[in-house]
This record gives sequence, structure tokens and C-alpha cells, in this order.
Amino acid sequence: MGRPPSRLAAFALAALGASATLSSARADEGMWTYDALPADLAARHDFTPSPAWLDHVRSSAVRLSNGCSASFVSANGLVLTNHHCAHSCIEDLSSAEHDYVAHGFHAKTAAKELICPGLELNQLVSIADVTERVTAATRDLGGEEFQKARRAITAGLEKECADSEALRCDVVSLYQGGVYQIYKYRRFDEVRLVFAPEMKIAFFGGDPDNFNFPRYDLDVAFLRAYAQGKPVATTEYLRWSKQGVAPGDLTVVAGNPGSTQRLFTVSQLVFERDVVLVELLLDLAQYRGFLDQYAAQGKEQRRVATSEIFFVENAFKAISGERAALNDPAFFSTLVQREDNLRAQVSKRPELVRKYGAAWNAIAETLQRFAQTRRALLSIEGSRGGSPWWATSDLFRWARTIVRGADERERPNEQRLPEFRNSRLERVLHHLLGPSPIDKPFEIAKLTFGLTRLREVLGADHAFVRQVLGAKSPSEVARDWVQGSRLGDPLERKRLWQGGTQAVSASTDSLIRFVKRIDAEARRVRAEYENEVESVLVKNAELVAQARFEVFGRSLYPDATGSPRLSFGQVRGWTEQGSPVSAFTTFGGAFARATGRDPFALPKSWNVARPQLDLDKPLNFVTDNDIIGGNSGSPVIDRTGDVVGLIFDGNIHSLGGAYGFDMTKNRAVAVDVRGIAYALEAIYGAPEITAELRAGQQ
Amino acid sequence: MGRPPSRLAAFALAALGASATLSSARADEGMWTYDALPADLAARHDFTPSPAWLDHVRSSAVRLSNGCSASFVSANGLVLTNHHCAHSCIEDLSSAEHDYVAHGFHAKTAAKELICPGLELNQLVSIADVTERVTAATRDLGGEEFQKARRAITAGLEKECADSEALRCDVVSLYQGGVYQIYKYRRFDEVRLVFAPEMKIAFFGGDPDNFNFPRYDLDVAFLRAYAQGKPVATTEYLRWSKQGVAPGDLTVVAGNPGSTQRLFTVSQLVFERDVVLVELLLDLAQYRGFLDQYAAQGKEQRRVATSEIFFVENAFKAISGERAALNDPAFFSTLVQREDNLRAQVSKRPELVRKYGAAWNAIAETLQRFAQTRRALLSIEGSRGGSPWWATSDLFRWARTIVRGADERERPNEQRLPEFRNSRLERVLHHLLGPSPIDKPFEIAKLTFGLTRLREVLGADHAFVRQVLGAKSPSEVARDWVQGSRLGDPLERKRLWQGGTQAVSASTDSLIRFVKRIDAEARRVRAEYENEVESVLVKNAELVAQARFEVFGRSLYPDATGSPRLSFGQVRGWTEQGSPVSAFTTFGGAFARATGRDPFALPKSWNVARPQLDLDKPLNFVTDNDIIGGNSGSPVIDRTGDVVGLIFDGNIHSLGGAYGFDMTKNRAVAVDVRGIAYALEAIYGAPEITAELRAGQQ
Repeated sequence: MGRPPSRLAAFALAALGASATLSSARADEGMWTYDALPADLAARHDFTPSPAWLDHVRSSAVRLSNGCSASFVSANGLVLTNHHCAHSCIEDLSSAEHDYVAHGFHAKTAAKELICPGLELNQLVSIADVTERVTAATRDLGGEEFQKARRAITAGLEKECADSEALRCDVVSLYQGGVYQIYKYRRFDEVRLVFAPEMKIAFFGGDPDNFNFPRYDLDVAFLRAYAQGKPVATTEYLRWSKQGVAPGDLTVVAGNPGSTQRLFTVSQLVFERDVVLVELLLDLAQYRGFLDQYAAQGKEQRRVATSEIFFVENAFKAISGERAALNDPAFFSTLVQREDNLRAQVSKRPELVRKYGAAWNAIAETLQRFAQTRRALLSIEGSRGGSPWWATSDLFRWARTIVRGADERERPNEQRLPEFRNSRLERVLHHLLGPSPIDKPFEIAKLTFGLTRLREVLGADHAFVRQVLGAKSPSEVARDWVQGSRLGDPLERKRLWQGGTQAVSASTDSLIRFVKRIDAEARRVRAEYENEVESVLVKNAELVAQARFEVFGRSLYPDATGSPRLSFGQVRGWTEQGSPVSAFTTFGGAFARATGRDPFALPKSWNVARPQLDLDKPLNFVTDNDIIGGNSGSPVIDRTGDVVGLIFDGNIHSLGGAYGFDMTKNRAVAVDVRGIAYALEAIYGAPEITAELRAGQQ
Repeated sequence: MGRPPSRLAAFALAALGASATLSSARADEGMWTYDALPADLAARHDFTPSPAWLDHVRSSAVRLSNGCSASFVSANGLVLTNHHCAHSCIEDLSSAEHDYVAHGFHAKTAAKELICPGLELNQLVSIADVTERVTAATRDLGGEEFQKARRAITAGLEKECADSEALRCDVVSLYQGGVYQIYKYRRFDEVRLVFAPEMKIAFFGGDPDNFNFPRYDLDVAFLRAYAQGKPVATTEYLRWSKQGVAPGDLTVVAGNPGSTQRLFTVSQLVFERDVVLVELLLDLAQYRGFLDQYAAQGKEQRRVATSEIFFVENAFKAISGERAALNDPAFFSTLVQREDNLRAQVSKRPELVRKYGAAWNAIAETLQRFAQTRRALLSIEGSRGGSPWWATSDLFRWARTIVRGADERERPNEQRLPEFRNSRLERVLHHLLGPSPIDKPFEIAKLTFGLTRLREVLGADHAFVRQVLGAKSPSEVARDWVQGSRLGDPLERKRLWQGGTQAVSASTDSLIRFVKRIDAEARRVRAEYENEVESVLVKNAELVAQARFEVFGRSLYPDATGSPRLSFGQVRGWTEQGSPVSAFTTFGGAFARATGRDPFALPKSWNVARPQLDLDKPLNFVTDNDIIGGNSGSPVIDRTGDVVGLIFDGNIHSLGGAYGFDMTKNRAVAVDVRGIAYALEAIYGAPEITAELRAGQQ
């Protein structure tokens, strides 16, 4: 499924602020920005996309607000993405009576398409360079001054750019702050669910097959963008390929890779390997054990926990793979080598030593200090405006949004915490006011688990733990919070948001009161981190990036930053322990792998259709495109601009991709569009969807 | 609670075979054997124990067959140990009707004392050196030959020594194989439960306070040794101290420290830090999440899972502490320094280089190879004859004992797997045939969890996983096993054991058949490990140990090996982040810390008695004795030989003790005997026990 980019941010703090480039990049490696394609593209792939080709792909490929990728695939706003990217929506729309996760969803007519709460699409409109304005604003500043100035200039630039509700603008820090750009997007804030297959085939093979290939998943969902209650009419969509792809064909992936750490300094990599990833895995492992057993209690418990299990299993496997990569002595030594090489070049030139020489040690020392305070930061504040790691609760998240949002909106835009800038508020409200249902028993169980673990991690005598628990047990506190809160009601959330600080002060809601009580301390640890850790890391990472530019020049790609990128590759299998792995799988392979037991059970629809099926139809395939979590849902495009596949995963070797790209083995995994169309017609009785997809074919 | 020594063996494979000495040991550090006390004992503590003093302590202090320590404290065979050491017994004797874990147990008369299933006591009778015979038998051998010869000589020596059912003999490898000794014990195989307080006070503060101090636990249980159905009459018992101890008083701890790794080579420490401990923590974290939520389902589920939760929480905290110690750069660098120092000395003398120079690299290379096969070994065979890590199931354990036991008993004693030697069979039968009840739903849940994780760890396509699951899901396999097995019935286990290979072959029991089916492969991976990994590690660790002897001489203490040891220290607090921590806590402190909510809820008996209590009575205290897991239940003895306390834990700084001893902060935590007696009289109405304890006082 790929490492999920957004929700993990709450855990993976150290990844922050880091982007960098490789010194040896070729066209087959890298996640390239639309305005700076690899120089050897024509030579390696005999491909030179025209400006029109690029504009069309840029507009057709979109970003989902949950961090996934997607693309327009019809003139009526039909959108192709992964089932796992639409999973929260499918789950939100489900109930004990209508379980669309289990049974799938199919709106035969537009009138039956259902709104996905809180989901929006962003379509990249333009990119502009703002490096000079950003760097001028922060020059010679440090600590709190640096943070304030950076926040102010970023907020100012984004506001200036997004001059209408229909737009969104993000300042993106590329090349570790070597380059700042502003990305302008058109927003589509009404998205409806059109079609989703059963979870059993969307995620056939489940966690065991996740990040593996051969694979047999129909990890597909169709959405539709609406505006003013009507389907969006557009000419910017990808044509559905007639003939599909074959081994060796050029494949272009247009998506939003979330985050890579390919040029972390060695001290950052060691911190990642020994602290960040291990602590994250331990949190996830315990949470996973809890969730699995919660789900084992009954059908309804399984239904409400499935999405969370899905997320945790995927994250656990992804991060285990990243840790394994960093623990591989051979791989790690190439990363050390790379830094040694750069530093050796720097040390030869006194002016470079003077400008950049101290940066590596400054980062190492800052991380050593940070190791002492990291757990408290993540426990009290969380990272990047997310929740503390133990509070995997919608109610808590809403309470914090309401309490902070009230305070922040009383400040000038440019002095606010970034997540409450005007340019972000629309999205905040989507999350806050959407009708996502909550399940009280599950909320109580999650908070009980989280509070118990909080006490374990910080210790029973930690001031914050005492403040949270007082003389009560974790389960009592969890029950009091959930029973004493009306935040499960969207109207109450709306009332509090609109009422601002006055309504918040007057509220007797248990969670609102709790969040208010801890907010000063939470803001304090956040500010301490930002001023004393983050600002030093950002400043010195900029220096390392500049040193790299000076030594290796600039024809490189930046690390992934969750913004739109292109990756170039081809359909290609690989060799696994001496045996070739073929690039394609078929419908027949799915039936061969099925055991009838979860997660290797096919849905009834497939078993019913089986006698009539052409088992040789292609289902999934692999390419050597360089992708990472966030690319889920990306279209795979051929040289004519037709969509030939849908990225939904990487193979097991792709997990080291966070730190480096191994072209011999790292593979992207996609659903074949021929398989999608075939399933829609032969299994799901959805010829109206394939007709819509094929309407653009010539 | 201290790291539990025996059950963890299934996880902590790499600890195997390693024992070593420090080069800077003083009397206050170290776990000393009875036959080799520290040379500076008189100088540091003005204490020179007479041979009679030593003989008396050696005979009065005993080892429990579950890896804990204990001591005789009356002429009628009364035995003092920890509640957590007797926990399995208390749980086994409990039922939904009689919950002795929750409510405590008190046999007012001998007739009401209940047999602890499978528990036995070992009393050290003598120690003899067998170094020459062992080394002569294995000289110049390697791989399988080495293993066979080592196994044969060990079996022969133990058999020769234990010439009656009433005896047990163990060959102990001290100083990393530099010294081999045979320890002869008298066995007491009938042990009954006399008294246990409520879990709430035995483990007051629960996991949050575990490994912490100040502390307020009555972690006490009284057992009684029986022979032929009568209480054992003995003169070898510790007198109950009249006046107790004061700060600065000499304290001798007589117990069975399980295992330390103080002179692992650096490559072993790195392997431990980055592979062994992290994988172990991940297994435990997930299992813990599962268990906690299993227990949350209801009262009966909590009752059956409590012991397992107890074990897992303790292990998780202990191992986290060990990992933290190894991840502390300052601490780790002292360990590196120590090896550098030794190797520098070796490198100065060509004859030492020739004999020992290659040993460190041989260990490092072997571990690097082992990293590739370790997970499969632990998944298919487990370590040291234990179960595979995923099979935390009594039924599985019994099935393996029956299947292997049948095969092994057909071989000559000296060719058997060590755990089935004649000298071990009595203990095997205790475990196999004891009446320990099983809870079917819990067995199914545990096996479902374990099999799911097995599939996750090895991958769905691993041959062993396919063999185990076939086309079924983990929960189906678990259910089939448990429903299709009659091994929950002790009589059926007895029938199969006595029937040998014939009965096993004829059995249709689901688990017997499964274990038979995988046994050849399990034995193969075990043999491969023993011949290609273990033998190389043992041989080269011997070389490192010999090099250490040659460089630093021999007046050192060996690493802990689960055999009886003495540790010398004094009652002493420490300074925590600038604040002094007093050495004693009182009954009043317990009431002050109580919140009324688990794990900070006192039992009803305490709250009822409170108005009448003298709140200044001492409850717990700390000493600077050097202890480790396995010392739980050890008596703390004063210079006159009286018992003044009962070890039950270490402070948080004691967790690094696996790798080194920090005398400024590492503290042992004990229950004060004055507090025990006071609670028995003022709270539990058990004057007959205190009368028995005081009968020996003069």
C-alpha cells in the first residue's frame, strides 16, 4: 500500500524539514518536479514530452487531501484512485446495516453517488519560485526569530497567492531549503463515491501480501468531483488506454510522493534507525496487538476497527522495511560513503569549509539533545500540529482543533500556527465538520489503551501524566471523556467553532476542558522544540544542501515533499534470489492463490463470475518507477498520455526507497487498466463506468 | 520484578553460552560463587564469613524450579519467596469461584495448605570442579563433533553425580567455559502454598512502579516444603531478624542471578542492541497489546490472562531498560573501551595473538551469518529446547514434550537433547503431568495471535508457514488444534508419555500430529544452529575468556548463570537528578500513594486495618547489592545470618546491570521483614505464621 504519508506524520517527527538530492541521479531514478525534468530523458527513454503533454498530465493528475494521489479519467469528473485511498470515505459511509467495506459500493446512477466527508481534490495550476523572498526574510535570524519570520513570510506568500476560496497555495521547500517554490492548486471540495469493490479483492492477500509481488489486488475506487452539486465537466483528464502496456514500455507515474530522506546526514540516519523507527515500531506493534484483539471481539468491533488496523499493519510493515534497509551494513555504508564523499570535497576548499564545515556536527549535537526531550514533545504536543501519539481519537482531535482554532483565529494570519492560517482553514473545517461518525466503545478502548501507554512511556510520576490522570485510572479517564463529550455531534462542533473563544470558555464538554487545561504546556514544548531544535536542523540542513549544490551542481531531483512529481521508468520484472519475477499477474493467478480464508478469500462476486471469466486477463504489473508512500492512486501513463495503470504499492525492496533507490530490485506495483475495465464489466455489471471511461478513446 | 530468567530464554537466544568477568571487580560488585569469595571482603565490609556461616546460608537459601530464589525460614520447612515467584501456583490453584490472585490465600492450618503444581525447590549441597574432564572431552573438536562430545560428557557427569531421584546435578560453565563445575542439589518436589496477600498489594503500583523506588509492595508469599506428605523438618533455615536493618548495614544477598552479559564482545553487544533486544521488544509489544485487550473483555478473561500480562509487562520494561543502557553512548563506550583495552594487551604479546587474536572476528562473522537464519530458527524450533516464540501455549508445549520425549527416551542418555537427559526427566514430568488447568478460549486466542504473527514475520509463502497453515486461516488452525486436542487432561498426557513412540504414532490428537509433522524440520534447524553457530560462538568465547585470564588474572567473578551466588552490599539510598532517595519506605507511604484505582488501589484488608496501623513501620528498602533477574525471592541476610529482607526488584538503573554495574545508582529493592511480620499480624490475622518465624529467635 505504500507508507501512508499524512497520518504517520504524528509519529515520524524526525523526517521533518529534510529534503535533498542524490549526486548520481539518472532519468530512471528520482521524483522530478514538472518544471525541472531530467536532462537525459530523451537519451534514456527516447521521450521528450511536449509542454502540452506536461500541462495535460499536470492538470489531469490530482492530489487527495488525505495525502494520496489520483487522476481525472473522464470528461464528467470521474476520478481514479486506490480503494485504500478511499477507504476512510467508504468506511464513513458504512454502518452496521450497509457495510460498503465488506460488500463494495456501486452507484448505478449519479443520484446514488454519495459524498465523501471531508475529502477534497487539489489540481496543480502553477509553480512559481519564491526562493529570494523567503531567504531574504530569514537571513541572519535564529531560534524564535527565525521561526517567526519564516512563518510570517510563508503565510504572506500563501495568502497573496490563494486569492479565492477555490484555490490553495503551498510554499514548498525543495532541496533542503535551497529552493522555495509556491505551488498553486485548484480545489475540488465536493467528492462523491462512485464505485468500490469489496475489501476482500481490493486488499486480497492482506498484510501478508502487502509490499509483495506477484500480487492480485483490485485496489481501485472511482470518485467523482462535483462543483455546486453537479459533476465537474473537464477536458483535463487521462484517456483510458485501449491496448495497455507490455514489458519494456515507458511508464510515467504522475503523483505526490510524500517524503524521502535520501540525503539525511549520517547522524540523522543513525537517529532515524536507532530512535525514531524503533520507537515508532514499538508504538505500532502494541497498538496493533490491541486493535487485532479488539476486532476479534465481534463483527461490529471488527468493522469499526478495520480502517485503523489497515493503517497500522501497513505502517508497521513499511517502517520495518525501512529499518531493515538502514540495518543492512552494505546499504548503510553507501550512505556513509556518500556523506564522506561530499565532506571530503568540501574540506578541499577553504571557502566551503568556512561556510558549511560546521553544519554536520551542529545537526548531530542537536539530535543528541533532542533525544532527551523527544518523547515528552510527542506525548504532550505531538508533531507538526497533529495529535499526541497516544490520542488516536477523533474526539480528541476535534477538541484540539476547536480550542486552538478559537485562540489562533484571534491572531493576525501570519502569526498563527501554520495549520490555522486562513489558507488552511477550509481544510480544517472539512475535517472538523464532516459527518464522520464515531463509535463510542471504540473511542473509549483506544483512549484507554493510549493513556495506559502514555503512563508507561513517561512514567506515573511525570507531571503531565499526573495532570492527565489525576487519581483516576486510564479507563475511567477515557470513559469520562467520551461520555462527557458531545463532540460526536457535528452540530455541536460547528457551534463551538463558530462561537470562538467565548463558546470554548463556556463549554463544559469534558474533552474541550481537558484540552484547554493542557494547552499552555503543549504550546510551550512545541515552541521549545521549534526554536531550539527545528530551527537549528533547518538552518544547518540548508547549509548541507548548499554545499551539495556547490560541489555537485544542480541537475538533480529534490527529495519527495508531498507535492506533484513525475517519475520515469518501464514495465519490468526483477530477479529474486536467482529466480525471475514476471512483470504481470492475471485473474487466474488470483484464483490460484485463493484459499477461501481471509486474507486469501476472494469475494463472492468473483467466485460467482469465475466460470465465465477469461483467466488470462492481466490484473497487476510492476514497473521500475521510483515512487514512495503518497504515490498511492497515481496514474501510470504511457508516452501518448493514456492511463495504463494505477499505482497501489511497491515491492518489498521499495521500502529502502526512503533512503536510496536500488534500480535492480525496487519496483512499483500497479493495477492494469485492462483488468479494471474487465472486472467492471465481467464481474461488477458496471458497463456505464467503462462506457464513460472509453468515451474519450479515439 | 527483575527480568524473569527462565521463560525469556525462548526469546533471548543470543545470551546463550556467554559468561565472563569484569576486570575491575570489587567486593561491592559481582555475583560471587560460594567457593570463591571476593578477596577484599574483610577490608571493605569488615566481614569474614566462617565456613559454618557459609554452609548454613548455602543450605538455607534455595532455588525454585521456575528460576526464582527463596529461603527456608522455619524448622518446619516454611519457605519465603516473592508473590510474583509463586504467582503461577496461586493462579493455577484459583478458579472462577476461588480467586486467590485477587483475594489472597491463607491456610490457617497445615491441612489447608495446597500443593503448587509442578513447583520444586533445589538446595545446593556441593560444588566440584570438572574443568579437566570437560575440556579433555572436547579438545580439538568442532561443529557437530564438538556438540556431541560436549553433550555426552555433560550428560555423563550429571548422571554420575545425581545417583538418586532426590538429587539433581548441573554442569555449570563459568568464566565463559574457562571453568566447568558440577553443582549438586537436593530436590524438594512437593511444595505447598501457605500464604499470599492480594495481588493489589503484592504488586501495588503495577507496571508503572515496576523497577521504580520509592516502592510500597508486599511482594511476599510463604510456601512449605513437604516430603512424603509431611512438612520437612530442618535445622537449615534463616532466623527471622528481631531488629531488622538500618542504613549502612552490611547486606548479603543469597540467590540465583539468571544471566548477565557483562563481557560480551562488542560485536555481541551490537547484535544484542540492534537485533535481539529490538526484535524481542517488538514481539512483546504486540503480544502485550493483544493481552491487554483480551483481558479488557471481561472478568474471567482478565483472570486467565493476568499472569501472562504480568510477565510480558515486566519483560518489556526490563528489556527496554537494557536497550536504553546499550543505546547510551557514554555507557556503550565504556564497554567498547574494555574490549579495546583487552585486545591492546593481547596484541602486545605475539603468543597471545597467535592463540586468541582471531576470536573476536570469528564471533562477529558468525553473528552476521546468524542474523540471516535467526528468525527461522526461533520460529521453527525456538531456543534451547523451548517453544517457538509464537507458541505461547501450554498445549503446544506439552505436545512437543510428549513427541520429543518419546523419541529421545529411545536413545542412550548421553546422545539425547539435553532437556531429555535422565537427570532432567523428573522436572520434565513435573511440568507435563502437573494439574495446571488450561483455558480453551485463551489458548485459541493466543495461538491465533501467534500464528498470525508467524505468518507476518516469515511471510505467507515461507515453506514452514505453508506447512503450518495450509489453506486455513490462523484462527481456524488455532481452533482446530485446541478443539482437537485432549492434552488439557493430565491423564491423557500421562498415557501418551508412558506409551512412548507407539502411543504417539497412534494418537489422533491434533497437536501431537502437528508437532510430529514439523519435528524433523525443527530438529534440522536446531542442529544447523548448534553446529554452525553455537559451537563457533562457544569455542571463541572460551578463547576470549582465556585471553582475559592471561591478561588480568583470576580473582574475578563470573557472569551470572542461574546458579547460587552471594552478593555483598549495604542498605543505601541514592541521588536521583540531584535529589536524595531515602533507603526506606513505610506503610504510611503506601496509603499516601494510593488513588483507589488500579494499579494504585490498596486491597480492602489494608483499608479496613488502616485506623489501627502504625504507619511508620518500614515496608520496603534498597541496598546496593549487585543482583539481576533470578534474584527475585532472595533473602537479604545480615552479618549474623538473620534474614532482614526479601529481594523483589531493582530500581530503574539496575536494568543496565546485564552489561555493567553502576554502584552509584544501581539498587536492589527488598521487602523489610519487619513489614512482613507486621502485615501478617496487623492486617492478615496470621499470628501462627509469625509465631513459626520467631520460634528460632533467641
